Amino acid sequence: VEQRDDDERPLATARVTRFDLEADVVVVGLGCAGACAAIEAAHAGADVLVLERAGGGGGTSANSGGQIYMGGGTALQRACGFEDSPEQMFRYLMASCGPGPDERLVQAFCEHSPAHFDWLVEQGVPFKASFFPDAHEPPQDDGLTYSGSEDVHPFCEIARPAPRGHCPQVVGSKGPLLMQRLLGGAQRAGARMQFGARVERLICESDGRVAGVVARGDGAARCVRARRGVVLCAGGFIFDDAMLELYAPQLRACRLRLGTEGDDGRGIRIALAAGAAALRMDAGDVTLPLVPPVALRKGVLVNRAGQRFINEDAYMGRLGEYALLRQGGQVFLIVDDAIFARPELFPVEIAAVGETFAELEAELGLPAPALHATLELYNRYAERGLDPLFHKRPAQLAPLVHPPFAALDLGVERYTYAVFTLGGLHIDARGAVLTPAGEPLPGLFAAGRTTSGIAKQGYSSGLSLGDASFFGRQAGRHAAV
Amino acid sequence: VEQRDDDERPLATARVTRFDLEADVVVVGLGCAGACAAIEAAHAGADVLVLERAGGGGGTSANSGGQIYMGGGTALQRACGFEDSPEQMFRYLMASCGPGPDERLVQAFCEHSPAHFDWLVEQGVPFKASFFPDAHEPPQDDGLTYSGSEDVHPFCEIARPAPRGHCPQVVGSKGPLLMQRLLGGAQRAGARMQFGARVERLICESDGRVAGVVARGDGAARCVRARRGVVLCAGGFIFDDAMLELYAPQLRACRLRLGTEGDDGRGIRIALAAGAAALRMDAGDVTLPLVPPVALRKGVLVNRAGQRFINEDAYMGRLGEYALLRQGGQVFLIVDDAIFARPELFPVEIAAVGETFAELEAELGLPAPALHATLELYNRYAERGLDPLFHKRPAQLAPLVHPPFAALDLGVERYTYAVFTLGGLHIDARGAVLTPAGEPLPGLFAAGRTTSGIAKQGYSSGLSLGDASFFGRQAGRHAAV
Repeated sequence: VEQRDDDERPLATARVTRFDLEADVVVVGLGCAGACAAIEAAHAGADVLVLERAGGGGGTSANSGGQIYMGGGTALQRACGFEDSPEQMFRYLMASCGPGPDERLVQAFCEHSPAHFDWLVEQGVPFKASFFPDAHEPPQDDGLTYSGSEDVHPFCEIARPAPRGHCPQVVGSKGPLLMQRLLGGAQRAGARMQFGARVERLICESDGRVAGVVARGDGAARCVRARRGVVLCAGGFIFDDAMLELYAPQLRACRLRLGTEGDDGRGIRIALAAGAAALRMDAGDVTLPLVPPVALRKGVLVNRAGQRFINEDAYMGRLGEYALLRQGGQVFLIVDDAIFARPELFPVEIAAVGETFAELEAELGLPAPALHATLELYNRYAERGLDPLFHKRPAQLAPLVHPPFAALDLGVERYTYAVFTLGGLHIDARGAVLTPAGEPLPGLFAAGRTTSGIAKQGYSSGLSLGDASFFGRQAGRHAAV
Repeated sequence: VEQRDDDERPLATARVTRFDLEADVVVVGLGCAGACAAIEAAHAGADVLVLERAGGGGGTSANSGGQIYMGGGTALQRACGFEDSPEQMFRYLMASCGPGPDERLVQAFCEHSPAHFDWLVEQGVPFKASFFPDAHEPPQDDGLTYSGSEDVHPFCEIARPAPRGHCPQVVGSKGPLLMQRLLGGAQRAGARMQFGARVERLICESDGRVAGVVARGDGAARCVRARRGVVLCAGGFIFDDAMLELYAPQLRACRLRLGTEGDDGRGIRIALAAGAAALRMDAGDVTLPLVPPVALRKGVLVNRAGQRFINEDAYMGRLGEYALLRQGGQVFLIVDDAIFARPELFPVEIAAVGETFAELEAELGLPAPALHATLELYNRYAERGLDPLFHKRPAQLAPLVHPPFAALDLGVERYTYAVFTLGGLHIDARGAVLTPAGEPLPGLFAAGRTTSGIAKQGYSSGLSLGDASFFGRQAGRHAAV
């Protein structure tokens, strides 16, 4: 790892000759987390200054699908006819976001989720009361969908399933609309914004309290005083090769890194250098984009030993996590002629074709009857609508009986896995950044992918914007005190 | 996570009214890393003070098996008739210690390993020129053994196998003898030692340079100045529940935590609070103690779907890693009457017994013919000395054909897995502690389980004492400059 060429250590206030700018609350980064922090800090009466390194607001959130994970009985869930409660949402997230989700974060997130939905509507984010049943990003403007593994094994036995992917009402990608409304909200709330201002380090009092930031823009470094608090909403580190190598080397195998160049981890590093703690820096959302078309869920995922390893109807982020982290990224989808299709999002190679399972197995170089036995067992029970080993839902179970059979190569080296980092600063439910001893680092708050949030590794779509919007609000509000 | 009740943040030198003690180099912790650091710092001409919280030296190293991972052609390897080179050792470690081992650490470790062995001999550590072939801790005083997965798939195809577990010459556990000699060496070298002195925080200059420590003993806190450097050799965090919950929750499932109460992570936390970086805090050595007796390697390890997932002759730390982290800690060992035995180290429950594979399968609650197919496939090839799926060595392959058959329950909830943490401070090959930006944190060095060393997750026995002794020496030497 190369040494970085500029200083990221906190600057002591004693060494600041002049503060060029001042505000009560300084928000670093104007994606979803930063916008929500700015709105709430301003509503709490603070003079807010947002520093954004890009030429305008939006960040990775504006480039995202725009889906937000909410539940517990939101107005939209009710309007679509779904029952949910904070307790059921809590159960699902505690079971699916591990290992070791932070109970306090999850608790706050669930308890206030219905009110959080209302708040987003107040900011002008529209949601259409229509449910999209296919459990991936709605291509049209439908408002609600299953965005995780709520209704599949094992989670459907742990918590009552409810769809919690809330999608802003627009055809296609929803991130731009979401951010347009949140940026408008931040402006209406009176937050000042400086663009092209890249925060390089924190400014700290001699007792460790964070008192501001050093921001570079137009070729000059400026000292910015934060009278009440700094809120770091500077994204993750999926675009920093050195950090990936150090902390999350397994994620490097994925072809499609989701983010912007701003996701270079600097927000995390400058906080660490000031004595903050970071958690689960190895974690990432790893998506294996199997669907659409949804028919492919009826295929059989096998590893390089020809064995199944998961219910194929699980959320694609769970499929990707298992495929990459537990199977070494070497997996195939076995299909028959009845369900054969190519994934719509990315090109796929066909690793083998055969008129019989034995032919397919031989073409994959597997010893007989490894794959054959796997598929015979699958078919034997699928005929009766059963999957006793991995519990795929009956609706997705159909024996593979229509030759030719094919093996789609979904290995990470040949297929497109999408990835972003989930590790980051340790925060409490107020968005306060904590030290290694678990104490708040005075004056410092954070939200979004700069933090380790709800999903410690296990992921469901919308949890990043969920973290960003919900804990962004908490961080802004508490920084303003 | 509860907030800790005492301050772990660095104390500013400006706030130190008086230094109660001074030395050129202050070593924190007197296990293997601390002893080696003290010896080398003293040999380099430094006045060395070691602070140890326990009543005497030894630490977890004195309670360990005492095996040290070395190679590249040590005198002991040659005396036992084994050929090795730093290049082959490097290949093995880069392949087995991932994900993402630190090439620079591994390079230095391998290149200087033969000389490091000679150095240990000079310190009075005896090694007998005899090879123990059974690849676990030698019960007698043999000096050399396979302590990892060097001679099994896939590593035997990546690097030329050589045994690298170097065992001090004594019957039984070798940790006490190793530490007796190293403590003697530290005393002879002239290092001063204070026991009952628990280091609570670092002392830092206003520019961040580490200038000493605050140590508590006899009820009083004392400020200790380190004129040249502080070396943290304070162990890992396997005995700190709060850190395990935050950083490595999966390790909590293991019953047997290897360490002493000193392994509470404080050495890591006080460095983090001073702006150091920590790596791979989720990582741990997870040992599934399958052998002795070695006959059990001829059994068939299956997961809860009745599938094999690894070559059963892999090193027990690799078996444990795969069982816990990839199979959810739910695994069984299938044996027949010919190889039936109980693991010698810990009691095991028998989950099922059957006269046929079908009976065994039914008693385990597995759908037919899941386990049956696995075992038929295994037998079919094992008869010919082959294992085309997982490549167990021919010597360990015997078809299971002697009923009754049994399934030993090696699940983490019922069997004893041994565990300690591998995550810790980011160091370079000199033992210098690095910041999140990859720069040395001036005045701070570390070694042993306080650091993330050679094994980022994949482990071989002896790597912790290898880290401790080798990088302890580097840290001591460079701190003395």
